[in-house]
Amino acid sequence: MLAAKVIDGKAIAAAIKRQTSVMTEQMADEGHKVRLDAVMVGDPAAGALYAKSQARHCDSVQIDYALHALGVDATEGEIRSKIDQLNTDDNVTGILLNLPLPDHIDTPAMQYAIDPYKDVEGVNPANIGLLFYDAPIIAPCTALAVMELLRHAGCEPRGLDAVVVGQGSIAGRPITLFLQHELATVTACHAETRDLVAHTRNADLLIVAVGKPHLIGAEHVKEGAIVIDVGINRVPDDSRDGGFKTVGDVRYDEVAEVCSAITPVPGGVGPVTVAILLRSAVDAARSQFDPRRLNG
Amino acid sequence: MLAAKVIDGKAIAAAIKRQTSVMTEQMADEGHKVRLDAVMVGDPAAGALYAKSQARHCDSVQIDYALHALGVDATEGEIRSKIDQLNTDDNVTGILLNLPLPDHIDTPAMQYAIDPYKDVEGVNPANIGLLFYDAPIIAPCTALAVMELLRHAGCEPRGLDAVVVGQGSIAGRPITLFLQHELATVTACHAETRDLVAHTRNADLLIVAVGKPHLIGAEHVKEGAIVIDVGINRVPDDSRDGGFKTVGDVRYDEVAEVCSAITPVPGGVGPVTVAILLRSAVDAARSQFDPRRLNG
Repeated sequence: MLAAKVIDGKAIAAAIKRQTSVMTEQMADEGHKVRLDAVMVGDPAAGALYAKSQARHCDSVQIDYALHALGVDATEGEIRSKIDQLNTDDNVTGILLNLPLPDHIDTPAMQYAIDPYKDVEGVNPANIGLLFYDAPIIAPCTALAVMELLRHAGCEPRGLDAVVVGQGSIAGRPITLFLQHELATVTACHAETRDLVAHTRNADLLIVAVGKPHLIGAEHVKEGAIVIDVGINRVPDDSRDGGFKTVGDVRYDEVAEVCSAITPVPGGVGPVTVAILLRSAVDAARSQFDPRRLNG
Repeated sequence: MLAAKVIDGKAIAAAIKRQTSVMTEQMADEGHKVRLDAVMVGDPAAGALYAKSQARHCDSVQIDYALHALGVDATEGEIRSKIDQLNTDDNVTGILLNLPLPDHIDTPAMQYAIDPYKDVEGVNPANIGLLFYDAPIIAPCTALAVMELLRHAGCEPRGLDAVVVGQGSIAGRPITLFLQHELATVTACHAETRDLVAHTRNADLLIVAVGKPHLIGAEHVKEGAIVIDVGINRVPDDSRDGGFKTVGDVRYDEVAEVCSAITPVPGGVGPVTVAILLRSAVDAARSQFDPRRLNG
């Protein structure tokens, strides 16, 4: 039995936030204010709750935050107008388009409307394409967070057999691209994978980003593997009547006995992703003042 | 011993070119002329030879062709100016930026300058990003050609274990994305892969896009697999003194005895890629007149 090293996402996030604070202070000294504007379409109550959390995180690193809430019936034209307005407002240095958008909206088209230099989540197709070419301006936060966690775990992906379970466009697919760039041999698994265990058991590096509580157990994991659990699932908490708890996609206790390093949930990928978003907001702000911009 | 089905790229290419001719004639009837402009930077002699071949292919399906040759010392500003001029010229419906560009040029930045709707090779990062989101306008030709060959071979990638050997940005990586969208379980292998045979021997579908003559032999291939050879390598021809011949990345004769279907080289991926480029030139021309354009 191995004692897995726990990769401490909270500590890593705290370090990134400290660095980010230093950067916002430096920018303030140069007369530049970092400001993140979020566009939210849909349920105002849920939106307000989420926005409150975003505002608090921004405030903790001296980033201004503004919310633009549109109704669930908003048209593509209305969303695009709002984004265009934020694109051209020099006080707005970063734009966040909260997902999911309602079904009647073409999501990539809306993401495409965001100025690539203000696209703090790296979701504009142009930014995704630059990531594909290994020349990103701003990359997706969750993928950046996973790479940061791997670095802190002392993991060098080059030459490793990596398996990414889950191929969503926000987490799994960008993570797959990043690991390819780092020269791991990456297998992209998903719901249609016929023999998941056969793939995951060969993985030196196992990333799980499905959103299914406890999907991955000890039987899926090679001894000594590094396991990153991207899943964040709310499930009923048996110990508290009517309560909920947050769990990952990995059965932590049993997998920790097999692998060499693992991220907990909560306290793993989640807080690092938030910290990376804040750092990306600062990077985006800096790029506004960078003369070497593409299509300047 | 199985008798592998030979996937006949020449016949598939001829069929695509016939369809493309019908499309250009229809567009001509509507008063729209398809025109492809190639930008070439570097050696004028090699460029002229290549351009002659491009012009001949275009002519065969009633597409106008124009070459814009820039010297090997051309600056990024000069290349960008040329592309901008073609972007804004309504007579130009498609733009081709011949690669490789000289080392002092930032290739993705130049590709990013091409109007996504005129980008017949689908190489603008925005087009790559839309492919990532499974919402492509125009996708890279070689990847489209591979998917076309698989369709003709009766191959349904969903659920298959696929291995793509070689992860270049022109062929291997876009092919990997396409196969992921078709819900194969894709493993992306490359020069840093530690145990290539272990991966390829499990592949129901094996795509090789490395550019190394005869890299893949029978020992790499699972019995009954489908094998697509993207490699096009010029090697000395022992049967003709001082002559050359074209071979793929796969040892055709021995692999054909193991696999169930295979593309030859020459006569496989190559001609289909050329035919797809012509079809994409027509698709691009059509999009010029499409009112549903992004950021129209």
